[in-house]
Amino acid sequence: MVAEKKLLPPRTVERFFLYSRFLKAKLEMGAENVFSHELSLAVGISPEQVRQDLRLLNISGTPQRGYQIAPFLADLRGCLSMEVPVNAVLAGVGNLGRALLRHFSEARPNLRIVAAFDSDPDKYGREYAGCPVYPAARMDEIIAMEKPLAGIIAVPPAGAQQLADDMAESGIKGILNFAPVVIKPPKGIYLEQVDVLMALEKTAFFARNMF
Amino acid sequence: MVAEKKLLPPRTVERFFLYSRFLKAKLEMGAENVFSHELSLAVGISPEQVRQDLRLLNISGTPQRGYQIAPFLADLRGCLSMEVPVNAVLAGVGNLGRALLRHFSEARPNLRIVAAFDSDPDKYGREYAGCPVYPAARMDEIIAMEKPLAGIIAVPPAGAQQLADDMAESGIKGILNFAPVVIKPPKGIYLEQVDVLMALEKTAFFARNMF
Repeated sequence: MVAEKKLLPPRTVERFFLYSRFLKAKLEMGAENVFSHELSLAVGISPEQVRQDLRLLNISGTPQRGYQIAPFLADLRGCLSMEVPVNAVLAGVGNLGRALLRHFSEARPNLRIVAAFDSDPDKYGREYAGCPVYPAARMDEIIAMEKPLAGIIAVPPAGAQQLADDMAESGIKGILNFAPVVIKPPKGIYLEQVDVLMALEKTAFFARNMF
Repeated sequence: MVAEKKLLPPRTVERFFLYSRFLKAKLEMGAENVFSHELSLAVGISPEQVRQDLRLLNISGTPQRGYQIAPFLADLRGCLSMEVPVNAVLAGVGNLGRALLRHFSEARPNLRIVAAFDSDPDKYGREYAGCPVYPAARMDEIIAMEKPLAGIIAVPPAGAQQLADDMAESGIKGILNFAPVVIKPPKGIYLEQVDVLMALEKTAFFARNMF
């Protein structure tokens, strides 16, 4: 098993999460073993890459039976710290922000969004998917109190950079930005950007032009 | 100007969309000219890459005044076919699907989602952000009638691959998949995947392990 503190590259982490999803589903269907070619097919990764990852994880199997799923999954989940609860906050409780609150709370109970922030007073004191909404001005204070590790940005583009800088200043270590603007990662902060509008624009562009 | 039918690589298309967003915002603030280093800073791309893109677009400027925004933006929008309306459909009217309907209809009036599909009869005949919901079983028929170019998938992971194959079969040319599962692109189809849960998992992982 890879030591938890040895930093894995983002692409590797991504593949490990994909493996863990697939193994979990297979285990739930009653399977006990898995072959590397199944992982390769399910996750869309070359068999060589899968075998290289298995060596990195120190997972061993046999050509006849493949790999045992339960210990493999336990190793992956340990390596990915998936059993450790993480607290997060979210800024921007618009359509997308509300959907993310509901989506995340259903899908990942271990990743708890403890507070949301918005500049619309009508939303203060309301709860979405069990998460209370506070005035944006109270973000520093509430982050200091709740000590969340991750911050999710779902505000309009103009305010995103400032918000990321404020979150970093308050002690957030990882930022997930949904605002359709490229923001610069604050120093020492992991930044992940998901540009939903860009994804739609690209899909529309290639749908129209490719064929 | 790049001919519309000459296929640009996805990364280039992405940069062009980022330039066009920035130029639009700058134009709205009253600016008339832009320098390549501003584009580089705003979009997070190296100055060399920006200049290479400008040569590709055949945009010329002067060191003193930079580039004129209005014709530059017009060229980009032409090159990206941004003035041409595109119709799309969406499958899966859950939390995320509904949020996407509202988000997209506000942000991109040129990209119209003409129909949504769900397997929950309670949703049939309802409208979200002006988009009617139909039974999933009517997808083929409605795609044949409306001839949308793009399909958006927001269903649970188990059904995503079949849905993508069905959309391709019905004539959809580009698919944007939000289901948290890796799907194989149907033959001749452009596929874009946005894995929101993966983005959150990665952010949480690096927030916890990086520092």
